[in-house]
Amino acid sequence: MDEHTLLAAARSARLQAYAPYSGYAVGAAVLTDDGRVFGGCNVENAMYGATVCAERVAVTTAVSAGARRLSMVAVVTLNGGTPCGFCRQVLAEFGPPELPILVAAADPALPVRRFTLAQLLPAAWGPEDLAGARAD
Amino acid sequence: MDEHTLLAAARSARLQAYAPYSGYAVGAAVLTDDGRVFGGCNVENAMYGATVCAERVAVTTAVSAGARRLSMVAVVTLNGGTPCGFCRQVLAEFGPPELPILVAAADPALPVRRFTLAQLLPAAWGPEDLAGARAD
Amino acid sequence: MDEHTLLAAARSARLQAYAPYSGYAVGAAVLTDDGRVFGGCNVENAMYGATVCAERVAVTTAVSAGARRLSMVAVVTLNGGTPCGFCRQVLAEFGPPELPILVAAADPALPVRRFTLAQLLPAAWGPEDLAGARAD
Amino acid sequence: MDEHTLLAAARSARLQAYAPYSGYAVGAAVLTDDGRVFGGCNVENAMYGATVCAERVAVTTAVSAGARRLSMVAVVTLNGGTPCGFCRQVLAEFGPPELPILVAAADPALPVRRFTLAQLLPAAWGPEDLAGARAD
Repeated sequence: MDEHTLLAAARSARLQAYAPYSGYAVGAAVLTDDGRVFGGCNVENAMYGATVCAERVAVTTAVSAGARRLSMVAVVTLNGGTPCGFCRQVLAEFGPPELPILVAAADPALPVRRFTLAQLLPAAWGPEDLAGARAD
Repeated sequence: MDEHTLLAAARSARLQAYAPYSGYAVGAAVLTDDGRVFGGCNVENAMYGATVCAERVAVTTAVSAGARRLSMVAVVTLNGGTPCGFCRQVLAEFGPPELPILVAAADPALPVRRFTLAQLLPAAWGPEDLAGARAD
Repeated sequence: MDEHTLLAAARSARLQAYAPYSGYAVGAAVLTDDGRVFGGCNVENAMYGATVCAERVAVTTAVSAGARRLSMVAVVTLNGGTPCGFCRQVLAEFGPPELPILVAAADPALPVRRFTLAQLLPAAWGPEDLAGARAD
Repeated sequence: MDEHTLLAAARSARLQAYAPYSGYAVGAAVLTDDGRVFGGCNVENAMYGATVCAERVAVTTAVSAGARRLSMVAVVTLNGGTPCGFCRQVLAEFGPPELPILVAAADPALPVRRFTLAQLLPAAWGPEDLAGARAD
């Protein structure tokens, strides 16, 4: 799986975005460690707090299909915006710190930015933090 | 599409539940108005607030595949518990008040309960409530 | 504590609403079983999914002040809209089925609607459903 | 307002934590640009996805009291864990990149870690990203 293919999946998913409230269509795609690709778009809600970002849709779709570990993520937004903090946290549940995250704009002529999860969520809080509490 | 088939899809989705924190595995399946079926399991997160219920995973997976209207929903939980209020709200974005919601327990010998969305979310708040504000 | 006072607290909280994205200002107030009143407004976020409704702000503010049980809730919106399903679920964590919920419009000349939590969230899913899983 | 006072407010708020499901008590406190301090604890929910972290409770309580800009944040957890990505996103709505975030452990003998918001949420997505879509 190369970057180009994953970005194409994210662009394709973006076409389905349900964003009547913000107008900000987002598409995402995740590559899982067993070589499968799952896409997702943002799914908004009139009760804004029930909105789900594209990245989380892609991740939960993958998990529902039995995947548990992410190998690469691609996100496409109008302006090339990065994943929000909420999505970074969800990625951290299923991806390693070195997880590659590709961020592209709707305009394919614009450059793709490349991050790792650790770059976007440094000093992350995660499952190992919780473990201590549950062991009490 | 009969009820039996949709419930089977929900039972199948439940097998993939990622519920290491609660231990409460849930599976859901939605039938869309174009005759497709999409399943989902609950996907928990160490940061509990980032957890996504099975119903919302199924709905957002369907929306990402281009669906916009729901025709039937099935949910399977350990004890036959109903969808939470958060999920009822998300169902209301894409389903009519008369949307049938089937609720089953893990034990297939137990009876299936049948609700409509209006029964589970009466006097609902929805997109039409928001419309007034946006028109201001 | 009479209904009029709680509604006034909700109206007052609504004046602080941070709703730059929806324009739908909401105020809420909760009466706790120890006789205290806590207000809250909706607090939106550019990442719509991080938005918190007024009802949940009021409840979490109350819990942070040591309260654990709700005795009455009041909500004021532009059009007299009811609490969303997400908020109904949060109310169910801290309130009994018979919890009175007053719903009013911005225009004080309009009638106040009165519900119980059980009327707004029938066949609720709650802590007792989870208990079975955790006991496994 | 010195750091010691804000940390003390976060420690105090932590005592009210409602964390029956995770056992991971968290306290937070925010200093607003008008010199006020607001505390919050985490407020969990049997439906894990409805859980609100302490940081978000403190922020939304502050906003409901009329505050709009944050000047400092303090968080106290069992093990000195950092804020999750979801909370970092909410802080970004109301705080500048240089917002100081103090992170302490329950044991006051352990060292306090100091971050800025930009350090915890680099390459942030925020309101300015959304603006483009809404202007379309």
